[in-house]
Amino acid sequence: MKFALKSALVVLAVAIVAGIAHAQFSKPEDAIRYRQSVMVLIVHHFKQMGAVVQGKANYDKASFEDHTKLVHTLSTMPWEAFMTPDSDTGKTDLEPSALKNKDEFMRAAKDFENATKNLELAAASGNLGSIKTEFGTTAQSCKACHSRFRK
Amino acid sequence: MKFALKSALVVLAVAIVAGIAHAQFSKPEDAIRYRQSVMVLIVHHFKQMGAVVQGKANYDKASFEDHTKLVHTLSTMPWEAFMTPDSDTGKTDLEPSALKNKDEFMRAAKDFENATKNLELAAASGNLGSIKTEFGTTAQSCKACHSRFRK
Repeated sequence: MKFALKSALVVLAVAIVAGIAHAQFSKPEDAIRYRQSVMVLIVHHFKQMGAVVQGKANYDKASFEDHTKLVHTLSTMPWEAFMTPDSDTGKTDLEPSALKNKDEFMRAAKDFENATKNLELAAASGNLGSIKTEFGTTAQSCKACHSRFRK
Repeated sequence: MKFALKSALVVLAVAIVAGIAHAQFSKPEDAIRYRQSVMVLIVHHFKQMGAVVQGKANYDKASFEDHTKLVHTLSTMPWEAFMTPDSDTGKTDLEPSALKNKDEFMRAAKDFENATKNLELAAASGNLGSIKTEFGTTAQSCKACHSRFRK
């Protein structure tokens, strides 16, 4: 019993500390604004890459790499904000199903992170064929998550 | 004359290519939304650090470093959006003086980038004294630019 109590207290303490460290959003509207801001930036940089992939803008290796690095970093940022309780109401397009199916949502989020990492690696290689492939995979990853979890 | 003409054409060609590569914002409102999104994220992560610096949240080296890295990356992102023509009107708090004094604005921008880099380096060292100093310098850098260029 003593051991069980001690274990329970340790678990509780860890949970509290983790809570302090990770509860970044005290209000749902802050979480909504944060994740929408991340998405504005992702869309912007993704469009810049899209223009290159579609041949509407010149390909510059360094500039393209910068876009991919930013998009990958941004792709890791908004998930806690998406999973913030009660952030599925108000000025948001988030389907309430996202908060009810956290594991599924987070798998889709991870798919996107992986896709943007592969795009970053392709950009570093400078191989336009690989870049186009990974750009397409990333775009599909956006669409898959949006069609499932965006109103 | 021939040489001068050739030089002029080279300059023009470089300017056009640079224009294609860098003209990221075709509409002022896109530039405004982009830079406001960057600022939302900077403020969020800066507040998270502020809570630690003020002793209201636990100091976790890895987590604090993550915040500083993000803020430094974000600090390099919004300047082209701020300097986009006609983006000093509409839904923005940007003082028109920013666009009229680009060099001064960009010096303030560079000060902020340098301050966030020093904060990132302090966070990597794990020295709380240095972190507090560089956090203060960064906060001053925010204020200096806002008081000069924000309505």
